[in-house]
Amino acid sequence: MRSTHDILLETRAALPTLTASRERKNAALAAIADRLLSEQDDILAANREDVEASRGRYGEVMLDRLTLTPERIAGMAQGVREVAVLPDPEGKVLRRVERPNGLVIEKTSVPLGVVAIIYESRPNVTSDAAVLALKSGNAVILRGGREAFRSNAAIVRAIHLGLEDAGLPSALVGFVEDTDHASAEELMKAVGLVDLLIPRGGAGLIRRCTESAKVPCIQTGTGICHIYVDASADLDKALNIIENAKTSRPSVCNAEEVLLVHKDIAPVFLPRLHARLTEERQARGMIPVELRLDPRAAAIIPGTPAGDKDFDTEFLDYILAVGIVDSTDDAIAHIGKHSTGHSDAILTRDDESAAKFTALVDSAAVYVNVSTRFTDGGEFGLGCEMGISTQKLHARGPMGLEELNTYKYIIRGDGQTR
Amino acid sequence: MRSTHDILLETRAALPTLTASRERKNAALAAIADRLLSEQDDILAANREDVEASRGRYGEVMLDRLTLTPERIAGMAQGVREVAVLPDPEGKVLRRVERPNGLVIEKTSVPLGVVAIIYESRPNVTSDAAVLALKSGNAVILRGGREAFRSNAAIVRAIHLGLEDAGLPSALVGFVEDTDHASAEELMKAVGLVDLLIPRGGAGLIRRCTESAKVPCIQTGTGICHIYVDASADLDKALNIIENAKTSRPSVCNAEEVLLVHKDIAPVFLPRLHARLTEERQARGMIPVELRLDPRAAAIIPGTPAGDKDFDTEFLDYILAVGIVDSTDDAIAHIGKHSTGHSDAILTRDDESAAKFTALVDSAAVYVNVSTRFTDGGEFGLGCEMGISTQKLHARGPMGLEELNTYKYIIRGDGQTR
Repeated sequence: MRSTHDILLETRAALPTLTASRERKNAALAAIADRLLSEQDDILAANREDVEASRGRYGEVMLDRLTLTPERIAGMAQGVREVAVLPDPEGKVLRRVERPNGLVIEKTSVPLGVVAIIYESRPNVTSDAAVLALKSGNAVILRGGREAFRSNAAIVRAIHLGLEDAGLPSALVGFVEDTDHASAEELMKAVGLVDLLIPRGGAGLIRRCTESAKVPCIQTGTGICHIYVDASADLDKALNIIENAKTSRPSVCNAEEVLLVHKDIAPVFLPRLHARLTEERQARGMIPVELRLDPRAAAIIPGTPAGDKDFDTEFLDYILAVGIVDSTDDAIAHIGKHSTGHSDAILTRDDESAAKFTALVDSAAVYVNVSTRFTDGGEFGLGCEMGISTQKLHARGPMGLEELNTYKYIIRGDGQTR
Repeated sequence: MRSTHDILLETRAALPTLTASRERKNAALAAIADRLLSEQDDILAANREDVEASRGRYGEVMLDRLTLTPERIAGMAQGVREVAVLPDPEGKVLRRVERPNGLVIEKTSVPLGVVAIIYESRPNVTSDAAVLALKSGNAVILRGGREAFRSNAAIVRAIHLGLEDAGLPSALVGFVEDTDHASAEELMKAVGLVDLLIPRGGAGLIRRCTESAKVPCIQTGTGICHIYVDASADLDKALNIIENAKTSRPSVCNAEEVLLVHKDIAPVFLPRLHARLTEERQARGMIPVELRLDPRAAAIIPGTPAGDKDFDTEFLDYILAVGIVDSTDDAIAHIGKHSTGHSDAILTRDDESAAKFTALVDSAAVYVNVSTRFTDGGEFGLGCEMGISTQKLHARGPMGLEELNTYKYIIRGDGQTR
């Protein structure tokens, strides 16, 4: 097994070749897409070994996430081709100033350098992350999970063949061969070798990054998303939005976890909500939502009494915490205290409430009369995403190609002194 | 003395008032400028105490940085008025997308929240930092040095009066009353209370922030700036630029510390450089520059042999490390290894060398035929700066008002679900 340090050094050393060969990036992406298809048998064979080894150890949902099929590999290759045609951020002049002294100052978008990503289970992240990094001009270090190791290794072999087909060094995509905690820790401490670390995984991984990373790190993903139903909300639309935000895919970070309802409409709205999310779903053969109610909501509808932590939990399940608030200000204050800064929504027909909510709720995505489920690179028109940032520095919300660039100032003159 | 924690809580609690009163920001800045002038006697009296207490303990340069005069206070007030008229980043729509499903997505510039700054000696930083933060919509926590404590406190009193004159809470500008290490450490760990920490001070402070800060932190200031003289350089201009970059203000971060010379012109250029920076400066009554030479340079001109650390030292003095390189590629490789990523320059008449240098040197500011001394918010046309970032995430180079904002996505719809 090659050491993580050696892989970091090799990838770092390969970076200038990519910087000097910008015009070859799209050709490399096309070659990678071809190779994913031509190496499909190897990838599927490696994936079968992963799936066999995981059977019995993981549940069906996890096994499904892990499993590759010819269709899924075709989807990966198609995803690579779609990234290839996106606008290239590298080298874009963000601002140009000519100063009175004749200096020409160009604030220019440039790649971050080496982007490392720590991720879990789904092998398609391997090709997604690699091509997003390459398209934006970065080298990449991939450190996937143990359960998908053979699949990831086979996908990386195909990517390396594609890079070589395009005359680029395969070391531009570094693959960490050690799936222990130690290799993740090493990436977190690789000052000077890693320019950005993106942890994509559970809350534990993200907390470890926040606490011990010495390299720049983007907090991603944790979403305790709120929907607040104002007194003036359209209640029919509110029911649709809430059911969608909670149940269309409960395991994802932009799913709703907390519902706040204005006290004036609670007596009318909560019974309808209860019917919609429990009896009606059961009647439709769908999983009902467990409601965890604060005392005021529990006085109106049946449900589980909310415990201490229910308003601070990312359930990722068919569970919804429900509370009653006295005003939009109270809803904003609650969200300020309990939100993870991912996505929060107000449902209202009152412009003043909407304006206050969008101004004062300090989250990556703030919605008016829309489901929180739209926080996504594709839905935002970015074409793709590397993850969803819940921090404020550098990137917020879905991280597309632009967010994988920094900038530098290039200043040209003719002997100017100060 | 009030606890730093209480001050942090108060400033955090005041922030929504500022967010809700954007239109009053410029009035507050005008009132602060007025109050700096009307409270001038108090500020000068407090400053005299600081200067008296420091006499004998600090050198003349430091005492001069500490000392306020009516002219300097007028300059502070004028600086506040100049910030007031700069374009306001807050609320600017950076990108607007209408999606096919009818969603209107606005990527909107918003303040970071609470910006904390740790700084030393010069009391005018107190008003500069406070008004830059306020103008960009942020509350601010100021933690100045012990030697300027009374001056800073008096300036903050004037700022508080100005805020109150404009009907804004004085807690928007929090002033840390404890100048011990402990209060700096507390700011570094104030997760949830501080959105951005900017250390402005010596390398020790910045290292402590990088190593132990739990809040987002911008690395500022350390500048081991290089100038590379290519074989094709205009040697007369090169001499002007090098003397300017090294000697116009040796104590600042954008001053040159290392000179690299192409081997082909070294035999002609180095003797001229030696004459210009030593004998000629002495003849003009100016401080000569000590040259620390690598072995190949030492074979051509007299000087101090460079020691192990001389190519990795921010001298901030009339000292210049001089080395010979074989090519532009070698110069780029040397800079990649030794630069702090602040400002680096190539002097050349060859377009290919210039293009290679600007593409591959990974620094905040990359210059072609210009002195590195121009890396500055004012010189870049930003109007002002909070510090100069040498990191790649979020902000790079001079941090003006835009860099004190983050963004959020505001999404408006009419009941859309996914």
